[in-house]
Amino acid sequence: MANTFGHLFRVTTWGESHGGAVGVVVDGCPPRLKLSEADIQPELDRRRPGQSAIVTPRKEPDTVQILSGVFEGRTLGTPICMLVKNQDARPEAYEEMATKFRPSHADYTYQAKFGIRNWQGGGRTSARETIGRVAAGAIARKILRESFGVEILAYVKQCHRILAAADPQTVTAAQVESNIVRCPDPAAAQKMIRLIERIRRQGDTVGGIVEGVARGVPPGWGEPVFDRLEADLAKAMLSLPAARGFELGSGFACVTMTGREHNDPFRARRGKVYTTTNFSGGIQGGISNGETIYFRVAFKPVATVMHEQQTVDIHYRNTTLRGRGRHDPCVLPRAVPIVEAMTALVLMDHALRHKAQCG
Amino acid sequence: MANTFGHLFRVTTWGESHGGAVGVVVDGCPPRLKLSEADIQPELDRRRPGQSAIVTPRKEPDTVQILSGVFEGRTLGTPICMLVKNQDARPEAYEEMATKFRPSHADYTYQAKFGIRNWQGGGRTSARETIGRVAAGAIARKILRESFGVEILAYVKQCHRILAAADPQTVTAAQVESNIVRCPDPAAAQKMIRLIERIRRQGDTVGGIVEGVARGVPPGWGEPVFDRLEADLAKAMLSLPAARGFELGSGFACVTMTGREHNDPFRARRGKVYTTTNFSGGIQGGISNGETIYFRVAFKPVATVMHEQQTVDIHYRNTTLRGRGRHDPCVLPRAVPIVEAMTALVLMDHALRHKAQCG
Amino acid sequence: MANTFGHLFRVTTWGESHGGAVGVVVDGCPPRLKLSEADIQPELDRRRPGQSAIVTPRKEPDTVQILSGVFEGRTLGTPICMLVKNQDARPEAYEEMATKFRPSHADYTYQAKFGIRNWQGGGRTSARETIGRVAAGAIARKILRESFGVEILAYVKQCHRILAAADPQTVTAAQVESNIVRCPDPAAAQKMIRLIERIRRQGDTVGGIVEGVARGVPPGWGEPVFDRLEADLAKAMLSLPAARGFELGSGFACVTMTGREHNDPFRARRGKVYTTTNFSGGIQGGISNGETIYFRVAFKPVATVMHEQQTVDIHYRNTTLRGRGRHDPCVLPRAVPIVEAMTALVLMDHALRHKAQCG
Amino acid sequence: MANTFGHLFRVTTWGESHGGAVGVVVDGCPPRLKLSEADIQPELDRRRPGQSAIVTPRKEPDTVQILSGVFEGRTLGTPICMLVKNQDARPEAYEEMATKFRPSHADYTYQAKFGIRNWQGGGRTSARETIGRVAAGAIARKILRESFGVEILAYVKQCHRILAAADPQTVTAAQVESNIVRCPDPAAAQKMIRLIERIRRQGDTVGGIVEGVARGVPPGWGEPVFDRLEADLAKAMLSLPAARGFELGSGFACVTMTGREHNDPFRARRGKVYTTTNFSGGIQGGISNGETIYFRVAFKPVATVMHEQQTVDIHYRNTTLRGRGRHDPCVLPRAVPIVEAMTALVLMDHALRHKAQCG
Repeated sequence: MANTFGHLFRVTTWGESHGGAVGVVVDGCPPRLKLSEADIQPELDRRRPGQSAIVTPRKEPDTVQILSGVFEGRTLGTPICMLVKNQDARPEAYEEMATKFRPSHADYTYQAKFGIRNWQGGGRTSARETIGRVAAGAIARKILRESFGVEILAYVKQCHRILAAADPQTVTAAQVESNIVRCPDPAAAQKMIRLIERIRRQGDTVGGIVEGVARGVPPGWGEPVFDRLEADLAKAMLSLPAARGFELGSGFACVTMTGREHNDPFRARRGKVYTTTNFSGGIQGGISNGETIYFRVAFKPVATVMHEQQTVDIHYRNTTLRGRGRHDPCVLPRAVPIVEAMTALVLMDHALRHKAQCG
Repeated sequence: MANTFGHLFRVTTWGESHGGAVGVVVDGCPPRLKLSEADIQPELDRRRPGQSAIVTPRKEPDTVQILSGVFEGRTLGTPICMLVKNQDARPEAYEEMATKFRPSHADYTYQAKFGIRNWQGGGRTSARETIGRVAAGAIARKILRESFGVEILAYVKQCHRILAAADPQTVTAAQVESNIVRCPDPAAAQKMIRLIERIRRQGDTVGGIVEGVARGVPPGWGEPVFDRLEADLAKAMLSLPAARGFELGSGFACVTMTGREHNDPFRARRGKVYTTTNFSGGIQGGISNGETIYFRVAFKPVATVMHEQQTVDIHYRNTTLRGRGRHDPCVLPRAVPIVEAMTALVLMDHALRHKAQCG
Repeated sequence: MANTFGHLFRVTTWGESHGGAVGVVVDGCPPRLKLSEADIQPELDRRRPGQSAIVTPRKEPDTVQILSGVFEGRTLGTPICMLVKNQDARPEAYEEMATKFRPSHADYTYQAKFGIRNWQGGGRTSARETIGRVAAGAIARKILRESFGVEILAYVKQCHRILAAADPQTVTAAQVESNIVRCPDPAAAQKMIRLIERIRRQGDTVGGIVEGVARGVPPGWGEPVFDRLEADLAKAMLSLPAARGFELGSGFACVTMTGREHNDPFRARRGKVYTTTNFSGGIQGGISNGETIYFRVAFKPVATVMHEQQTVDIHYRNTTLRGRGRHDPCVLPRAVPIVEAMTALVLMDHALRHKAQCG
Repeated sequence: MANTFGHLFRVTTWGESHGGAVGVVVDGCPPRLKLSEADIQPELDRRRPGQSAIVTPRKEPDTVQILSGVFEGRTLGTPICMLVKNQDARPEAYEEMATKFRPSHADYTYQAKFGIRNWQGGGRTSARETIGRVAAGAIARKILRESFGVEILAYVKQCHRILAAADPQTVTAAQVESNIVRCPDPAAAQKMIRLIERIRRQGDTVGGIVEGVARGVPPGWGEPVFDRLEADLAKAMLSLPAARGFELGSGFACVTMTGREHNDPFRARRGKVYTTTNFSGGIQGGISNGETIYFRVAFKPVATVMHEQQTVDIHYRNTTLRGRGRHDPCVLPRAVPIVEAMTALVLMDHALRHKAQCG
């Protein structure tokens, strides 16, 4: 179960950074939907390393192949296996990692848990694992859009201390994609890019906040008491490498408001219920209420820095380690399509679950 | 699955606020452990309404009965069903709720999802549902303490703008229980209590932050890539009524740090690895690293306020509603044992999962 | 998971023979269905001990209480907990079992697995555990009948060497209930009753075959490759105490037929496809084909006989044991409603699963 | 979930007969085990078409590649993806199947369920799907043998009316592999081979019974009440194409025995408990008792016969169809390694589950 996400729209990812390939199996996809690699590849291209000057320079075309589950351009309802070969594998670049644990990476904990680890490029803990998520998310997103009218997007809301202005109700994909940092506020975007470039020159890294949005979700999705919609979103987001926090709607800021201030009044118009504010973030009691769902995810600065740091080796002796090779100064631009993918996976699964019991 | 939590230590809660009873079935509990109602009742007493002047005055003894799974004072390894009868049921107090949706409650979304709802006392959305979680958590906590040496506690870290000083490494249960707001910082506790009393007199409500701590978790618990330990904690916490956010270790504050500042250096001492800082919150790559696990959960102010608010009725007509009856000004004191219970459930499940694959 | 059955219509049973109660939680039931104890009790009465001269004389009214999930006579879509109290508990009758393992019972294996067992009345291995299954099955059966037009029944097809004539297509519940052995062939029924009475007088026991039937299942239910409809039926049936075998349609007899003899020709009539024979038992490739589903379950003779038998005690010393107290000469009459209940649980779960992916 | 088997040792198969590839993902495999393609390939070779004159002549080398989860010859504890490319794809041979439903195949039910099907070579319903099962089973079997001392094998027990003599306690793999029909009784084997050759010449097909055996399973594996060991074996076997029945130990023959005849007396010898007979088939109350586990699976004759048969087309018009191309007269020789694989998957999963709760 550790590598499977979802109950009815089920996604199982597999693969290490420097194994033969990475990929995903999607089980439970509805049948008869048009699907081809052309639906998947654009999302992988947005996640791909080397796409701009402010992300990791690893060279990977990340070309997806669909191996099963599609026939004559349509889904069969059977498992869809998708595969991306690993190409830019440079195990020699990682030799020092064979014997030393990188600070704030998962080297030590994988070794402690499994007694073994693939130290080449981080192995299973590499961000390459998210390729499978993005590929599966592309399918979910397409179905949500075409069959349910749900629109999902994400964008960089904050990088270090630079905060972007963005309204979850109106922000567009075009705005997000208009710059390499994927921030819909052009002024903030320029500041972020300059900051990331400076951080890169310093051999350092920086984190930030990605905001995720889902518009058009009908009232009724979400499965209390444990599988509340926000609970599954939180799990999905905290399952991402480098994620440190999740907040829905008003989030942590709700703390300094009173109930009178924070409650979202209901109003009705032409037989439809809506709220005049949306501190709830589109979810009440674990179930969507028809308003825009929005949430934020905090990502820590990438752990690999180009400076010498204290650490221990695999024999538990004190030593130091200096990051080498590819330097990814900021995870945020590539986190955007990954947050979108996970949002799509959560919503797709809940769409099917709602249909099963209440449809 | 909606009402079941965990994979190997599985908890299924059931019950409505004003049905006959609420309860829980625990499946997967190890056999031969000493267990009786006396292990459960103290935790329920901490969760109970009416325990102090700053929580809801509903009168419920909340006496637990163990109906199965225990024989001659020891667990059998078979399902443990625990039941608490509902007593202070006053359906008449809720009659207005039969026809109007309370703002920022789950009345509307339950109706939208299921086409029916038990409007008496919130039905399934009532905080009474957490009785089952606390009862199950008491078992998990006992096993974690006795078999694994893991100590779990939680406390109020912030109420509105009042922030408590508390060190996750050293705070004690006695400090937490020394005042009715369950804040280990005595000065902050007194301010919080005065604030909550004032808020109550105003017929308003207030939220805050609970910090959860687990000490003594060995390196190796957590199941990447999806069932990362922090992902399951996040899900557990966001599955709680009124929870709005979750953050691990440095949390959202990681955003304004660089990688060099944020990384936790490893050091070794007498064959054991530790980190000199703990921004990671005890979890790296989804797996515990042996340091103290700590995280924070934001709770919004309780939605029921003693003031007239705009809303709609079940026929989708605009109307107003004024909270009546029991007034719970602040969820925080009672959220503390619930956060502890959910933490215990997550860790217990992961302890068994780790043993299964890597033990 | 051990005590939970089903994915979307999920049933969790709990309880020991001589604990306080036995019961079940049903999660995933569709909302707004009429439901009360009156829908459940008749099925429990058919399963009840003491209902005739040829079954165990244990005195249990087995009165069911619904504790949650129903409001004003309709299901809420929340978990339905149902409970039956244990009354005729006579622990003293089982004292010898505290120290000796009954042959071909589960005493030894429970002790070997768990290191502990509730020896009173068989504890969790008692047939009382099936009360929860029958109660849950009654709900499933009602939904299948009212919402899907599916009719389920079972009957005794063979007892020892006495074989009943019965056509799965036409047999009626009235025929089955017309005699205490629940065999729709009156002549065979009389022989069976006489046989069981003789076996009882001999202090011995006898087994047989129950045939299960589901009529009106639409084409398309079943989830290959692993959750084939017959696979889940087989699991359901083999999860019953004393079950030794399962066969679908032609079953083991298919072995002596060739492909030309065994294939079911398709024909079409007024836009509907049917088969002219039904050796497939209504399932092809794991999916229902619209024909009547029928299968057989072999039940071994009850292990408790009123004769001295060789066995070992809990200290692994050779000894003997003689069955005492209540003598159940034949499990078949009471197995009939249990087979029906498990069939209903499998079909209900698959109805929802089919709707989720393909509906 | 439909394409995933197991809870802790989880296997997800994917792939169609004429898609790009078929394969499997194994999640939950213990870490640090030696593993390479050389452990897998021999089992695939035993399952391969074209291996002898009495099975389907499809030409497939079925060469397995391990794409993930193994590093420097050892398992990582991460998902193991294994892939086999489809080579002998002849879609033109199946063109008639594009428009007609083959009797007693799954063509019609897949169409009814999904509204689409890959008609080339049976698509997902092809026996090629079992490649993933056999590959995964090879891993499970190796672990069971090396870490638990459990030996698994299967063999042809009956073909049409020819019954083999074989003692589950003593039969060896060498005996099974000594002839192309995989029957350990040499005289019966020769008769079976001659029968299958005659059936093949007649353009017909024939089924039979495979007996599965597991020796060395310790007492205590199995998870009542629903996940009894025999229930999961039954599900595993009935999830195989063409399986029609399952029976454990005495099986359906228990019906004509009384309790006194059928009970297995316990005896103790040097601190170990054993039974003097083994009608229970090594499982009591759903839990292994330390005796040899044995069971039988009935397989129907292959549905494709080289004769004209009545059927309907995709427009639900009556027509006829005559099997063409590759003719597989008997599924039994290739079913043997598949039954072994599924047995291994069930036992491996239960070994881990037992360790998790009771270890």
